[in-house]
Amino acid sequence: MQTLKVDLGDRSYPIYIGSSLLDQDDLIHPFLNGSQIAIVSNETVAPLYLQTLKQSLSGLKITEVILPDGEQYKNLDVLNTIFDQLLKDVHGRKTTLIALGGGVIGDMCGFAAACYQRGVDYIQIPTTLLAQVDSSVGGKTGVNHALGKNMIGAFHQPKCVVADISVFKTLPDRELSAGLAEVIKYGLICDAPFFEWLEANIEKLVARDEKALAEAVLRSCQNKAEVVAEDEKEGGRRAILNLGHTFGHAIETHEGYGVWLHGEAVAAGTVMAADLSKKLGWIDEALVQRAIKLLVKAKLPVVPPQDMTPAQFMELMSVDKKVVDGKLRLVLLKGLGEAVVTGDVPQDLLHSQLEESCK
Amino acid sequence: MQTLKVDLGDRSYPIYIGSSLLDQDDLIHPFLNGSQIAIVSNETVAPLYLQTLKQSLSGLKITEVILPDGEQYKNLDVLNTIFDQLLKDVHGRKTTLIALGGGVIGDMCGFAAACYQRGVDYIQIPTTLLAQVDSSVGGKTGVNHALGKNMIGAFHQPKCVVADISVFKTLPDRELSAGLAEVIKYGLICDAPFFEWLEANIEKLVARDEKALAEAVLRSCQNKAEVVAEDEKEGGRRAILNLGHTFGHAIETHEGYGVWLHGEAVAAGTVMAADLSKKLGWIDEALVQRAIKLLVKAKLPVVPPQDMTPAQFMELMSVDKKVVDGKLRLVLLKGLGEAVVTGDVPQDLLHSQLEESCK
Repeated sequence: MQTLKVDLGDRSYPIYIGSSLLDQDDLIHPFLNGSQIAIVSNETVAPLYLQTLKQSLSGLKITEVILPDGEQYKNLDVLNTIFDQLLKDVHGRKTTLIALGGGVIGDMCGFAAACYQRGVDYIQIPTTLLAQVDSSVGGKTGVNHALGKNMIGAFHQPKCVVADISVFKTLPDRELSAGLAEVIKYGLICDAPFFEWLEANIEKLVARDEKALAEAVLRSCQNKAEVVAEDEKEGGRRAILNLGHTFGHAIETHEGYGVWLHGEAVAAGTVMAADLSKKLGWIDEALVQRAIKLLVKAKLPVVPPQDMTPAQFMELMSVDKKVVDGKLRLVLLKGLGEAVVTGDVPQDLLHSQLEESCK
Repeated sequence: MQTLKVDLGDRSYPIYIGSSLLDQDDLIHPFLNGSQIAIVSNETVAPLYLQTLKQSLSGLKITEVILPDGEQYKNLDVLNTIFDQLLKDVHGRKTTLIALGGGVIGDMCGFAAACYQRGVDYIQIPTTLLAQVDSSVGGKTGVNHALGKNMIGAFHQPKCVVADISVFKTLPDRELSAGLAEVIKYGLICDAPFFEWLEANIEKLVARDEKALAEAVLRSCQNKAEVVAEDEKEGGRRAILNLGHTFGHAIETHEGYGVWLHGEAVAAGTVMAADLSKKLGWIDEALVQRAIKLLVKAKLPVVPPQDMTPAQFMELMSVDKKVVDGKLRLVLLKGLGEAVVTGDVPQDLLHSQLEESCK
């Protein structure tokens, strides 16, 4: 097992990465506040792992909140069902919520913890690759709104994260690929050697080699922890983690939450961002092709959905959280491992880029 | 105009108290982040004060969100209509929300600001006595849940508070009295000289003497600001601000939100807390009678609703936010101006107290 510390002053917390961690009852216990626990999971993950987790928590009063599975359920109404259950079982301020699931469960459980009685503790046990490398690290929590993804939420750091590599055995291929999109992102935005390692190891990752996956999770979390420690609330640099996300969120919102997986949308969005970076003369065609090749090997889409128009992209991107005073800001590449946030993309260039992408 | 500073490090903010402040455009402007503003108000307050406020904000892009009036609308569904409007008008992270209304508007607007795009700025312009002396100071925001009051929320401090005494001219008698319940509370919990001042000036306050009201608002806010500065997130001492609130919240939840005003429920709850303190031998009958006399002069109820039973109180109080590991904690009095939070009230004493109160 490897332990990685996310360094955020009095909100610091450890990420444990390794095999068969769900059974280890000594990992979670030190972080419990009292005798009340609520495990938030979904209909897909609970039958696989809830019993194992509960065994390591014997003797405690456990409330189970099992939500429907999918991004389309990440909204205020479903969030309220978590509050219903917590109040029915009379959970107090010293309760601890545990997120057992992918990014949707982590985001909703974390947001519920941020708001329940104005804030209680929570622990992340991410069961998808995407959640392990991205959504469970950094304290971004929230739900979607019909008009925009992740528009309602809070920064609320977990007490610890348990990333159990063994859960990938039950992960569907599509979910594995979606996670790889975020893994590849870290290489592109801030870690060129990791990108090269990924080029050399992508086949092993797709074949679920446990050692390679553990390495990918560790290095992804290291990169994310470093960026988050520098800029917890995204005043500046943290925004680079959103490479491909402005385009990607537009795709997710347009297609309907859950139709494209988040990682799939990010993959197509990453290619759009790389293309635009090339158009600006910041990177060369060779790097764009390397990114595309790696994403294709990871079995990810590299073009947006056929039914989307440039106008639809522009409209959906206008509510992006990185917009400042009406000005769209995008995360683009200045080289391999070097991302920047820019509000200076000429409108005509962006339009011609969208025209090309939507062909 | 008087200026009071709430001292919370980098979350410190000023409270401006005085007459005709709504027209003064130099008060709010320094706290605006960008050119976007959303004013959140309700159907009662907006026709009275929205135009005046807008005049002092000319040249800015203003979104108006007008909610229905009443505690029964302080829930997640109505909260979502604020997000609808913000997203339709493409508000970004640099927007500023302004709460123009009573406690319900302040709590909802503040919570919307805490959650919109994971946190934007907001300003409080409280238009009821209760909001000026209580809910607009201290950063508690949130909404109610069918199973408990203020159960979903966040700590989110405003950038400034503008307490315009002139708005009391349009305040209904019942709302004025409700505010006085919280004013009297400050005397009881931490400011004996203020309690004595209130005994001497209660007739002036009920008659809406502007000078007396300004003094009452200032001293109430001073008391609250001091307690909050010591314990922003209610780890300890801040809980004393909840004198009468555990009983009061039970009344509000049982009667249906909006049937009893918050201040009315707190008034009856305060008498229950005082009675219980006397039963414990902590204060004498004379002080209980002084509190009752002052509340009656402020035209407030001093007994709970006739239809409530001790069992109903016990059930509703079990979800109180001050409950720790299943143990109810109450704010009680050890003397005039001296409140304590205690988990040590014998069950039989509490029951006999509830039996008496519910006769």
